[in-house]
Amino acid sequence: MDLTQIQDPGFLKNMSVDELERLSEDIRKFLIEELSATGGHIAPNLGVVELTIALHKVFSSPQDKFLWDVGHQSYVHKILTGRAKDFATLRQYKGLCGFPKRCESEHDVWETGHSSTSLSAAMGMAIARDLKKTHEYIVPIIGDGALTGGMALEALNHIGHEKTDMIVILNDNEMSIAPNVGALHSVLGRLRTAGKYNWVKDELEYLLKKIPAVGGKIAATAERVKDSLKYMFVSGMFFEELGFTYLGPVDGHDYESLLENLHYAKKTKGPVLVHVLTKKGKGYKPAESDVIGTWHGTGPYKIESGDFVKSGDAAPAWSKVVSETVRKMAKTDSRIVAVTPAMPVGSKLENFAKEFPDRMFDVGIAEQHATTMAAGLATQGMKPFLAIYSTFLQRAYDQVVHDVCRQNLNVFFGIDRAGLVGADGETHQGVFDIAFLRHLPNLVIMMPKDENEGQHMVYTALTYDDGPIALRYPRGNGLGVPMDQELKAIPVGTWETLREGTDAAILTFGTTIPMALEAAEQLEQQGISVQVVNARFIKPMDEKYLHNLLGREIPVLTLEEACLAGGFGSGVLEFAHEKGYQGAQIELMGIPDRFIEHGSVNKLLEEIGMTTKDVAERIQAMVPTKEKRA
Amino acid sequence: MDLTQIQDPGFLKNMSVDELERLSEDIRKFLIEELSATGGHIAPNLGVVELTIALHKVFSSPQDKFLWDVGHQSYVHKILTGRAKDFATLRQYKGLCGFPKRCESEHDVWETGHSSTSLSAAMGMAIARDLKKTHEYIVPIIGDGALTGGMALEALNHIGHEKTDMIVILNDNEMSIAPNVGALHSVLGRLRTAGKYNWVKDELEYLLKKIPAVGGKIAATAERVKDSLKYMFVSGMFFEELGFTYLGPVDGHDYESLLENLHYAKKTKGPVLVHVLTKKGKGYKPAESDVIGTWHGTGPYKIESGDFVKSGDAAPAWSKVVSETVRKMAKTDSRIVAVTPAMPVGSKLENFAKEFPDRMFDVGIAEQHATTMAAGLATQGMKPFLAIYSTFLQRAYDQVVHDVCRQNLNVFFGIDRAGLVGADGETHQGVFDIAFLRHLPNLVIMMPKDENEGQHMVYTALTYDDGPIALRYPRGNGLGVPMDQELKAIPVGTWETLREGTDAAILTFGTTIPMALEAAEQLEQQGISVQVVNARFIKPMDEKYLHNLLGREIPVLTLEEACLAGGFGSGVLEFAHEKGYQGAQIELMGIPDRFIEHGSVNKLLEEIGMTTKDVAERIQAMVPTKEKRA
Repeated sequence: MDLTQIQDPGFLKNMSVDELERLSEDIRKFLIEELSATGGHIAPNLGVVELTIALHKVFSSPQDKFLWDVGHQSYVHKILTGRAKDFATLRQYKGLCGFPKRCESEHDVWETGHSSTSLSAAMGMAIARDLKKTHEYIVPIIGDGALTGGMALEALNHIGHEKTDMIVILNDNEMSIAPNVGALHSVLGRLRTAGKYNWVKDELEYLLKKIPAVGGKIAATAERVKDSLKYMFVSGMFFEELGFTYLGPVDGHDYESLLENLHYAKKTKGPVLVHVLTKKGKGYKPAESDVIGTWHGTGPYKIESGDFVKSGDAAPAWSKVVSETVRKMAKTDSRIVAVTPAMPVGSKLENFAKEFPDRMFDVGIAEQHATTMAAGLATQGMKPFLAIYSTFLQRAYDQVVHDVCRQNLNVFFGIDRAGLVGADGETHQGVFDIAFLRHLPNLVIMMPKDENEGQHMVYTALTYDDGPIALRYPRGNGLGVPMDQELKAIPVGTWETLREGTDAAILTFGTTIPMALEAAEQLEQQGISVQVVNARFIKPMDEKYLHNLLGREIPVLTLEEACLAGGFGSGVLEFAHEKGYQGAQIELMGIPDRFIEHGSVNKLLEEIGMTTKDVAERIQAMVPTKEKRA
Repeated sequence: MDLTQIQDPGFLKNMSVDELERLSEDIRKFLIEELSATGGHIAPNLGVVELTIALHKVFSSPQDKFLWDVGHQSYVHKILTGRAKDFATLRQYKGLCGFPKRCESEHDVWETGHSSTSLSAAMGMAIARDLKKTHEYIVPIIGDGALTGGMALEALNHIGHEKTDMIVILNDNEMSIAPNVGALHSVLGRLRTAGKYNWVKDELEYLLKKIPAVGGKIAATAERVKDSLKYMFVSGMFFEELGFTYLGPVDGHDYESLLENLHYAKKTKGPVLVHVLTKKGKGYKPAESDVIGTWHGTGPYKIESGDFVKSGDAAPAWSKVVSETVRKMAKTDSRIVAVTPAMPVGSKLENFAKEFPDRMFDVGIAEQHATTMAAGLATQGMKPFLAIYSTFLQRAYDQVVHDVCRQNLNVFFGIDRAGLVGADGETHQGVFDIAFLRHLPNLVIMMPKDENEGQHMVYTALTYDDGPIALRYPRGNGLGVPMDQELKAIPVGTWETLREGTDAAILTFGTTIPMALEAAEQLEQQGISVQVVNARFIKPMDEKYLHNLLGREIPVLTLEEACLAGGFGSGVLEFAHEKGYQGAQIELMGIPDRFIEHGSVNKLLEEIGMTTKDVAERIQAMVPTKEKRA
């Protein structure tokens, strides 16, 4: 079947199981081929081919509403809703988004990227439906990993209580991104081994209803006996306790089971949870046999061998530099422990975990718990390293405020993927952390100019004893600079002159430093001498340095790959106006006040107007002409 | 017993149950008397008198660690750890804090204020203990309301999985602040009616172990039969499923049961949950018979009658003005629904709930779920009003970013208790919201000068169709201004001149407006003419107004009861430097970079240096002297 001809999923209604199976094959082939060129979330999508087709066959999107939790598993849904033709542009600038996107299709009713939001959103949609007295089905599809996120549990609790009509599809592949953890996971494990959904249930319940309900104690006992018998025959007591009808476990690659259970779910009143077992990477050997999550999301790969196309970048990954330095220090400092919310691979903590299995804590998708647990560790004199992506730290803002900063505890935040992240797009850009952290008392925030300074900053953080300290580092690889053998602490709140200059100064940090240096080079040719400053401590700023600089009354440009409002540049303005440098000519460059979509980081910077050329032009405009200066 | 003589809880070890009961009476009498003068969280503390005493008798604080979730129920703990003598200063400036505070006592090992943090912190402490190979008991005490908070569920999931030694005390009073909601609450309800903890359990388990475990299917079935029987005799299957040993329910006012179960818990390996039933307000009739939460936290009251001491303030409460306007509008706009995370009383939504029971959603302590559910409602054309305190909105930061603002959905945030809140102190001050919201694309943020403008802003928000909009309003009562009969929309992004002036201008909003006007009055006497501007839209700012003002080149002071870093003043600086008003003399007044403790708001403003006098002095310093001006 030519998938690019599909306009909408209506054609599925009349297809036989045989035809569906052939379609599955076509889709798998398509995904494996397309993604080998573009990269993408291959394993999660191969796992839900049959499930997605079955859902679109049984329900009628967009009247019925699918909410794809996290959303990286929505490729098959995109194919079935007329977007196969766009896959060559997947996750590229102005191309198909890697997540559901309302502007792409009426079938995308809820946008995701972060996990565990679908049940809450579904509850909102279900309430709206019931108030409007319409009758569409609301169908969130959530993974077993995402289910352990606090807000998903909050939603389960609410939905079960309200007995709202809703069909929750639990896509259980025993993995979130890394293998799952948590007691709920064990609950699911017990269900998986308990065998097929037992049709005895309905009959049993009918019989049980006949047990005479008499008042008081006997009734309670009868109720208890009923529950007990029910438990004996029906799996999913955990969910039943929360008010859900549990169906499953269902083989997620078997159409007959899928269709049968989905039809049954449609007929069931109140909230239903359909427990579907799927295999991540199904149908593509290299991805199927992956046990640690390498194939969760990938760059381009060679189909035959399953080898990844090398980027040719020899510099070490930022996550690796940071995690390995933590590991080295942990050898001699037994207070150091590592905490990750489900990102041991992304955060490159595998070696740490191997060497210090007792001091490594993957808490699953649970950013709030991870942060406050780190705070608890710190109260006892431990030195927790919390490795967390900038965008996911957003989910623990109050824990950073209320538990860590307020109590001034020694938690070391490794803020990974800070700045633009590229292909994952607007849900994942790490551009807000400075603005949501800078106003928090007691917190130190730093970002290194290269991986050598990065390792020294890890040392700085783990030897710092005055409260919380955060190290931002970008996605991707370092610059390939030589690494010092000896680690050293960088005095907190000190900046560094990278290049002297007399006509203007650029204050910047991290990834934008090379851009600033290049611009300064170019301006030198034009007779403009620009000082470039490594403003490596975003908080506290180097006040001595600022006093000196602002006292010289030259134009100052702040440059940051982070949102402008409330960012580093704002901090410089606050300082200047507080300290009486009212006339200082300070301008800010950074991310403007809108969400930044997906695309390569360079392309995005170009669009934003944050390239070497832009920086040079801005400085030119700020510096008086030779005539004026003379 | 003279409670003020207590130094530490060691004296409890040798007390008989009779003596403990007399002590309970003394403590209740003490609390009822002391709090009648100071106000405070009377009902929660009366409910945990026996529980707290029993905990301190069975465990040895501070080696053993008590973590009081939320923490407003720690008064008895404070009395037993030597702080009875300080109760006259409770929640007052430099006085005893209403929550656990590490600087007050070594027995306060974890500070709280916000709910649902104790289990995560306890897990951190337990891990530290196990790594250090010490053997203290870690005992978080959490209410049934706090248990439904997402992070508590994340922690349960992790603790149960790791089988960590920990004794969780579930203080079940069937209320969080308002009566509880949620399926988990029903689970607890079933446990409560299931009767006393069944000692048969141990014996049964012993017998069950003798069932021969054979391979494959039969083993699985045997396992299932075991589970089923267990379920029949043992309550708490929900928690057992999560990996906890469940003990209870225990009568929380009966020492023998309490002591027996706590001793049993001490001997039990792995995580234990002791389900304790308590009665909020126990021993004080007015508080005991309270069903909606009026006695949760109160001001001063008359002991005999249970009447509250009137503040004499006739102006309506801010929460009331906002909620009542929403209710009025809901009469003719069926799209309007109200959502609250467990604050129906605090947010004054009782009338709304009475009039529109189908359109009122109290989701329990679940701020993340509340926010994203509101987003889900908005996708379907509804107009959700989310009433949430500023400090609790911190817990839903990512949901505001990722779900609401990014999708540009019409959610109306009623940000209650914005600014300093007074007696609840540093965990509750609503001073960060501008800094954590201002950088979010698509969001409108406003704050009214008085309750009349407040009602018009509610109208503005609920007739606004271009995305999310937030209305900040302070704790306490309005100014007592006349209220317009007709509601009207205020054009988004417009400011208002409250007072013309030629020498300087103050840009301010909300609670600080009266201060600015008074300062301007005083300065007038000294020949300094000050313009006062109602900068009611914090975002977007009134750019036209700013252009005009900055063009006049007079000194400008921004004044806000919110943190300085990244706040409204920063926004003004960003604008000035972006638009070329580099030389503008702008200074900022606001909350400095530290956490602000408890005390009356006026006292705190004085300490911060944000009074009429301070404002006047600052303007004086900014305005050139007559001579200079001439």
